[in-house]
Amino acid sequence: MKVVTFGEIMLRLSPHGYHRFTQADSFEATYGGGEANVAVSLSNYGMDAAFVTKVPEHAIGQAAVNDLRRYGVDTSKIVRGGERLGIYYLEKGASQRASQVIYDRAHSSIATAKQEDFNWDEIFDGVDWFHFTGITPALNDDVAAICLTAVKKARELGVKVSCDLNYRNKLWSKEKANEVMSGLMPYVDLVVANEEDAYDTFGIKAGNTDVTSGELEHDSYIDVARQLNEKFGCEYISITLRESVSASINNWAGMLYTGGKAYFSPTYKIHIVDRVGGGDSFGGGLIYSVLNGKKPQDAINFAVAASCLKHTVQGDYNRVSIQEVETLAGGDGSGRVQR
Amino acid sequence: MKVVTFGEIMLRLSPHGYHRFTQADSFEATYGGGEANVAVSLSNYGMDAAFVTKVPEHAIGQAAVNDLRRYGVDTSKIVRGGERLGIYYLEKGASQRASQVIYDRAHSSIATAKQEDFNWDEIFDGVDWFHFTGITPALNDDVAAICLTAVKKARELGVKVSCDLNYRNKLWSKEKANEVMSGLMPYVDLVVANEEDAYDTFGIKAGNTDVTSGELEHDSYIDVARQLNEKFGCEYISITLRESVSASINNWAGMLYTGGKAYFSPTYKIHIVDRVGGGDSFGGGLIYSVLNGKKPQDAINFAVAASCLKHTVQGDYNRVSIQEVETLAGGDGSGRVQR
Amino acid sequence: MKVVTFGEIMLRLSPHGYHRFTQADSFEATYGGGEANVAVSLSNYGMDAAFVTKVPEHAIGQAAVNDLRRYGVDTSKIVRGGERLGIYYLEKGASQRASQVIYDRAHSSIATAKQEDFNWDEIFDGVDWFHFTGITPALNDDVAAICLTAVKKARELGVKVSCDLNYRNKLWSKEKANEVMSGLMPYVDLVVANEEDAYDTFGIKAGNTDVTSGELEHDSYIDVARQLNEKFGCEYISITLRESVSASINNWAGMLYTGGKAYFSPTYKIHIVDRVGGGDSFGGGLIYSVLNGKKPQDAINFAVAASCLKHTVQGDYNRVSIQEVETLAGGDGSGRVQR
Amino acid sequence: MKVVTFGEIMLRLSPHGYHRFTQADSFEATYGGGEANVAVSLSNYGMDAAFVTKVPEHAIGQAAVNDLRRYGVDTSKIVRGGERLGIYYLEKGASQRASQVIYDRAHSSIATAKQEDFNWDEIFDGVDWFHFTGITPALNDDVAAICLTAVKKARELGVKVSCDLNYRNKLWSKEKANEVMSGLMPYVDLVVANEEDAYDTFGIKAGNTDVTSGELEHDSYIDVARQLNEKFGCEYISITLRESVSASINNWAGMLYTGGKAYFSPTYKIHIVDRVGGGDSFGGGLIYSVLNGKKPQDAINFAVAASCLKHTVQGDYNRVSIQEVETLAGGDGSGRVQR
Amino acid sequence: MKVVTFGEIMLRLSPHGYHRFTQADSFEATYGGGEANVAVSLSNYGMDAAFVTKVPEHAIGQAAVNDLRRYGVDTSKIVRGGERLGIYYLEKGASQRASQVIYDRAHSSIATAKQEDFNWDEIFDGVDWFHFTGITPALNDDVAAICLTAVKKARELGVKVSCDLNYRNKLWSKEKANEVMSGLMPYVDLVVANEEDAYDTFGIKAGNTDVTSGELEHDSYIDVARQLNEKFGCEYISITLRESVSASINNWAGMLYTGGKAYFSPTYKIHIVDRVGGGDSFGGGLIYSVLNGKKPQDAINFAVAASCLKHTVQGDYNRVSIQEVETLAGGDGSGRVQR
Amino acid sequence: MKVVTFGEIMLRLSPHGYHRFTQADSFEATYGGGEANVAVSLSNYGMDAAFVTKVPEHAIGQAAVNDLRRYGVDTSKIVRGGERLGIYYLEKGASQRASQVIYDRAHSSIATAKQEDFNWDEIFDGVDWFHFTGITPALNDDVAAICLTAVKKARELGVKVSCDLNYRNKLWSKEKANEVMSGLMPYVDLVVANEEDAYDTFGIKAGNTDVTSGELEHDSYIDVARQLNEKFGCEYISITLRESVSASINNWAGMLYTGGKAYFSPTYKIHIVDRVGGGDSFGGGLIYSVLNGKKPQDAINFAVAASCLKHTVQGDYNRVSIQEVETLAGGDGSGRVQR
Repeated sequence: MKVVTFGEIMLRLSPHGYHRFTQADSFEATYGGGEANVAVSLSNYGMDAAFVTKVPEHAIGQAAVNDLRRYGVDTSKIVRGGERLGIYYLEKGASQRASQVIYDRAHSSIATAKQEDFNWDEIFDGVDWFHFTGITPALNDDVAAICLTAVKKARELGVKVSCDLNYRNKLWSKEKANEVMSGLMPYVDLVVANEEDAYDTFGIKAGNTDVTSGELEHDSYIDVARQLNEKFGCEYISITLRESVSASINNWAGMLYTGGKAYFSPTYKIHIVDRVGGGDSFGGGLIYSVLNGKKPQDAINFAVAASCLKHTVQGDYNRVSIQEVETLAGGDGSGRVQR
Repeated sequence: MKVVTFGEIMLRLSPHGYHRFTQADSFEATYGGGEANVAVSLSNYGMDAAFVTKVPEHAIGQAAVNDLRRYGVDTSKIVRGGERLGIYYLEKGASQRASQVIYDRAHSSIATAKQEDFNWDEIFDGVDWFHFTGITPALNDDVAAICLTAVKKARELGVKVSCDLNYRNKLWSKEKANEVMSGLMPYVDLVVANEEDAYDTFGIKAGNTDVTSGELEHDSYIDVARQLNEKFGCEYISITLRESVSASINNWAGMLYTGGKAYFSPTYKIHIVDRVGGGDSFGGGLIYSVLNGKKPQDAINFAVAASCLKHTVQGDYNRVSIQEVETLAGGDGSGRVQR
Repeated sequence: MKVVTFGEIMLRLSPHGYHRFTQADSFEATYGGGEANVAVSLSNYGMDAAFVTKVPEHAIGQAAVNDLRRYGVDTSKIVRGGERLGIYYLEKGASQRASQVIYDRAHSSIATAKQEDFNWDEIFDGVDWFHFTGITPALNDDVAAICLTAVKKARELGVKVSCDLNYRNKLWSKEKANEVMSGLMPYVDLVVANEEDAYDTFGIKAGNTDVTSGELEHDSYIDVARQLNEKFGCEYISITLRESVSASINNWAGMLYTGGKAYFSPTYKIHIVDRVGGGDSFGGGLIYSVLNGKKPQDAINFAVAASCLKHTVQGDYNRVSIQEVETLAGGDGSGRVQR
Repeated sequence: MKVVTFGEIMLRLSPHGYHRFTQADSFEATYGGGEANVAVSLSNYGMDAAFVTKVPEHAIGQAAVNDLRRYGVDTSKIVRGGERLGIYYLEKGASQRASQVIYDRAHSSIATAKQEDFNWDEIFDGVDWFHFTGITPALNDDVAAICLTAVKKARELGVKVSCDLNYRNKLWSKEKANEVMSGLMPYVDLVVANEEDAYDTFGIKAGNTDVTSGELEHDSYIDVARQLNEKFGCEYISITLRESVSASINNWAGMLYTGGKAYFSPTYKIHIVDRVGGGDSFGGGLIYSVLNGKKPQDAINFAVAASCLKHTVQGDYNRVSIQEVETLAGGDGSGRVQR
Repeated sequence: MKVVTFGEIMLRLSPHGYHRFTQADSFEATYGGGEANVAVSLSNYGMDAAFVTKVPEHAIGQAAVNDLRRYGVDTSKIVRGGERLGIYYLEKGASQRASQVIYDRAHSSIATAKQEDFNWDEIFDGVDWFHFTGITPALNDDVAAICLTAVKKARELGVKVSCDLNYRNKLWSKEKANEVMSGLMPYVDLVVANEEDAYDTFGIKAGNTDVTSGELEHDSYIDVARQLNEKFGCEYISITLRESVSASINNWAGMLYTGGKAYFSPTYKIHIVDRVGGGDSFGGGLIYSVLNGKKPQDAINFAVAASCLKHTVQGDYNRVSIQEVETLAGGDGSGRVQR
Repeated sequence: MKVVTFGEIMLRLSPHGYHRFTQADSFEATYGGGEANVAVSLSNYGMDAAFVTKVPEHAIGQAAVNDLRRYGVDTSKIVRGGERLGIYYLEKGASQRASQVIYDRAHSSIATAKQEDFNWDEIFDGVDWFHFTGITPALNDDVAAICLTAVKKARELGVKVSCDLNYRNKLWSKEKANEVMSGLMPYVDLVVANEEDAYDTFGIKAGNTDVTSGELEHDSYIDVARQLNEKFGCEYISITLRESVSASINNWAGMLYTGGKAYFSPTYKIHIVDRVGGGDSFGGGLIYSVLNGKKPQDAINFAVAASCLKHTVQGDYNRVSIQEVETLAGGDGSGRVQR
């Protein structure tokens, strides 16, 4: 089965270890972005995954492409041109000190892409699933229009569509997000959101949840899912539940709502290696599960186990195997040495 | 407002990661020392902070100066000369294995400094606050005499004085410490101590506290503060409360005693990145708070939050912003990614 | 007192930090192996420890020898020849992601060694103790025969013998292990096993212990020890008790059964730096304790404290001093900075 | 146009910088091998290049595959199975100290491959060129037989064949090489050799050349090429001319003999970054040139310029663009900064 | 004496060692830019040097400021605001492989600065010299206008002005450069150019010099200087003479033309460590020399020796002392160990 | 045959690559010193070499011991005690920029050693050769007296003595050196000097040699050797001839004068990796040669080839094999890859 994801891939620059930005005289250079991360997850699970974007025609753009190829992602539909590769700087937090992200993504090749850069008929040839996140249409009106073209074409061709809301307040206002995303959602079959996205994007409230205090309540999430389902008719609605005890310790779980019923995963207490890309690895695990016909409870368990493991992997990409995910989803989180 | 701190800055040589000394074939090279660390803290908070010391006239001495300049500290009053820059070797502990410090600081330029190296009238020109620690007079009698000259001049010029007791048994005996520090304390307005300093330096007992067992008792600390206040008349007496669960996990809090009343901060459970300099960052936070007119409860909360964050920062220096400290002091220690 | 250990030393290749194999473009290169690790432990405790093996006559073989020499191990009895140095690849796990070991040890110099390579009369000259693990006879029949020659000669010369069962299912079947080890055990004075070894090697069951769930039961371990004692007559039987909460957190304890009585150590909750070699450091601590006449309770406490500390040391070898072990065994696991 | 190369890919372990093996506590981990290196060269030039081999079914085998994918090589025909990935240790020389290579390649998956592992009809579907080196048949008789099957099938299907003699005296004797290679050469259209290969493999002498003294004589090379042409009828015979001034400085040139005429490239004086893979990058450049219809003089100039640049690239693979090669072949070796 | 320089400071991202961009998984992070580099040179020589620019108000902007402070540059006049810090990617060349620079500097804070961001009366208070390069007005018309304001104000206040032509064809056309620079040059007292700048910027030809072939002719350079002097009336005209033998070896010299006479420095054969910033270090050395009243021959010798040394220093900045420069200018380039 | 060397071993702290001290935030940590370096050389050649010194009783002192053990040096006679391990900071030069050494060796354990620390009867038991350098007696009068005791005892026991003059002007004046060394030389059988040592120590002039200009003249060196022989009666007098073209390129040769005849080695043009310890590796090679009965010409050729290779090895120690030295001494300096 073949999946296409569409969005931005950025150079991620991160000081080594727990160094702060002002201490760094060297940056780890990796690549990532919501949709690229999902493509790598799916490729790791043995699926045929392609990532579509636009990158500049120089060696840094090529390095981003090479990194995707390394993990088996089909990069043949990536367009070359434009000015620059977007960057994000990441400083890893620890204990009570939060991780910091500084975006330097404006004017990137993908942010300045045009409708004519992408031939969706060709891109969707033989494709079963299309994935994007709320970050992509947030880049600007042109890219939002490209997204709309893509999801309409997908619906036309019978390609299933998933979207991770991923609201980013540095990219657009809540009003703008609501307007644009409301136009895209009718074409979305599976939606992923964290505990704040539904509210930020559509004003849908998750009850009286206080994110900072870390208390999560199941009922309110079911309520949010029900509202999303009623509003846009998505078949699958999934919400990730993160309790941030500190930058070093998170509790992590998820819910899948489908067919009028909610399925909750177990909760994992995670010692964090790298938290960024955690949500994307959840999306990747869920798409894999649904495409491979897993039952809802198995699907949410697989997705949460996959993303639990992602928190232990350096870099945006989730580099874990199906077997590793199944072992954890099957109940063995003991971390005993595998010889 | 301008603050001057006075003491030794050392080259800190530390194996990478959790390597032991005998495994290391490379050392992280940073710089630090009780009073230099306080100067960097204050500079980070936007204050005009100068550090006074003596360093050798070669490139390693210059590298120490450069590192201070990098963080905005005024180094124009640093004297050049003498033989060597003091060194301390630090091996980072983990879990039940304790961190090890090996000092190689004897014969350093500052330890061989003379009264005539420092013109305190000039140094204190336009200055509001002077800070030193018990380590500095412990270097030897000459440096102790310089300290006495400095604090007397400070009192004369209306410069407030703070002192972190920081008893070091490798540098002097308890008897000697008592003798010298008792001569300096009458000029001190704000004193910082940890749970053992008051006893080691002045024989003042903190009740039946068993440091190793990690049980801390509030009343006994109030009692110690009261005794210090009675003996030396310091306006502010502050005690840091560390419960060392292991080299990886510490509980951390503090108390400020002023106006006959004790103010306790919340306690933070810290996953430690780098514990050295933790006390200094507390001092820096407290001086900042008092100089900027914070109320006692806010002051101790700021100081403890600041030093909590220091434990997550590599190197002696506390590289955190006022905003980061205020966020934590305001109750958000969730460590959620800041995008 | 002089100890000889005999077995394989391998090059250990490990990605830096928590990188996965497929991310690594550099490997930490250290050396280790069950019996080499014990030799280093003993050398660290000031004992005269020699390691016997066969390594190829090239620079990588020499590098393994040099690494042992660095820690004071007598390498003068190491034989040169054969084709290659065995390798194991280690990927460090974190939280729910398990550590992975990939062995590439077949065809190594030691695995192709012959009886005539080793002159045990000469090797045991002046020696008090001989140690090997179940890994060595598992290499193949020739090496198993060498082991048998060695233990018989040891018994003949009054050299005490210890063996860590260390069952490895990639090296041999349970049936084969039972057959070979049953021939060796009659010459063994002290046996070390973890909670699975006795069952895998001899079919001796430790009651209803579910390793993955992490519940350990004392009685069943005593029962296992009693069976081992009855079957082979070993004077000392020691079992390590590991509860693997996750790859980041383990609870660790041990039991020593001797004179018909079981002695349990305290349990340590460990934040893991490097778990590999943990069992070997236990063996090293126990041999040291027995050879130096410690009482059973002190012996097991020392061995468990030693191996607790090993989990905080990078690399297979336990680089800790007697004093560090005694401090922890004496109850101070606070990890406070040692200045 | 599509090219297939067939052979072994190894993990290359190399101390950082100029460290000797016995100093290293870390190895750079890259991947390479004669034929894999050619595939990467061709992929860099925009050709469709596939590499065929057998690698073990574990993460280290996968890492080798990923590294090839990163540079765009088609890895879909790589077979999984067997015991291990071959390794070579490389210590980089400098000045008068020679680079050292220690092979640990015996028992690798490819060395234990069987005829049935490869379906050459399928592999050669749509393929224009097939490349292998003398290293591959040298692995053992089975692999030599696979090579013979492959070149016969290639001839049958009209696929052009190239071979780099690459004699390795650690893998086989001159007699054995002569016997096996003489059976393969009739199917080879383009042969690459260095100044010693023709003699070592076929006893063909290059006149009175003293390699160590570094004096190279053109006529003798023409003579060698003529003999190879007469003996095996290869259309293209190319010889690389290396004058090793020291491990830091080499002079480098090449000759292409075709149609009864010899074409010599200019000679480059190279400051060496990484010499290993230099010959393979020559082969890659030559195959590219011939496949793209370059005239003989242009072809040898391109191949030598390409391999000159390889000596400045870390790792076995030649990561240079057509444009970079053309610039150098066009006469600009000034190395001026390209902004 | 106080010098102000004005321009852009960028984050420089460079793969370690000789890695190519597509190999890098880590970048050395340093900071630099034509005018910042000059400021650091002057600060190293003990002068009071300030750098004026605009950087974003986040940690990466601050890191650039900190790096300047580290080397003693006065950063108090740096303006905060705008979107991003410009970046340039640098891949270090070797032998025949040229270094590659990829600029990602558009939309930087300084490129979007406005006249009102800078108060030149205040900036020039107490200042003796002002320096900028042709890169700064090339950023765009707004910044060109700021430059014009600055040089006019400098002339008005008696501040000497120097300019390094530094033509960059990626930033503007020759026509545009000619137009803008011709408006600025009348205010310039000292101009620095390399062998191509005068032609690219003003169409002034240096005779029949073929840069790639590396043949440099003195007379033609004198002719260029004479033309520049006649056209703009600059008191000092200096031309750097680089013969690029390869990316590893350059020959380096310079000429100073003043009072109708040309002074040539000796030529240095340089083994290059880091070539970027070489021209800036020449400018720094020349400004220092002129400001300190050196005679023309001494001035050009100092400037060339200083920049010769820069080629051996990693990073854009020239971190050398006056004494080191004087030793080399005095004829000792033997590189013997200084103990 | 057994050799003992006596002197100081220091921690060597060196920025990575070509970083200057003020850029370094990490130091390579190795160990070395004139006599320790000779011991490692001899151990590498398979001789039984012991190093005698005094190091502090902490982990850094132990790390120095471990590093010696790693290379097979007998460290059993090293005394523990005293205050600190001496340090030297080394910044590697390149091209015209000289390497810088900053010593921080005062007050080291060996510098504060006393006669009673060393029992020379015991140390010399079974020993054939004793080596020291002029650095050791230069430490202070006590250590000079220890040296005198040692050489007298050596003469008494028939142990041959060698001394490398190694004049260090930071440690003592020429007058003092002359006085002390003149007392030691009568006991010296083999003396090593560079082109300046004989003059600095004994006022013996090497004719009109201008070291900086790099012109070396053979006759004057023979003259110096003759004078040394006449004055002190040493059997072997050897002079190293270094022409420092730059910090990157040195020409290197040596002369051995014995039996009234001078033997000159060939001259090597060296691309330098690490020049420090070059002289010591010459001494090591010469002692090996003489002890093993090589003829004078072979001896000087071996010593110079050995030290030529040292310049390509990182760190003070010469890690080369007899075979590598013989290959170079035999005329093959081509640096071709050894497979």
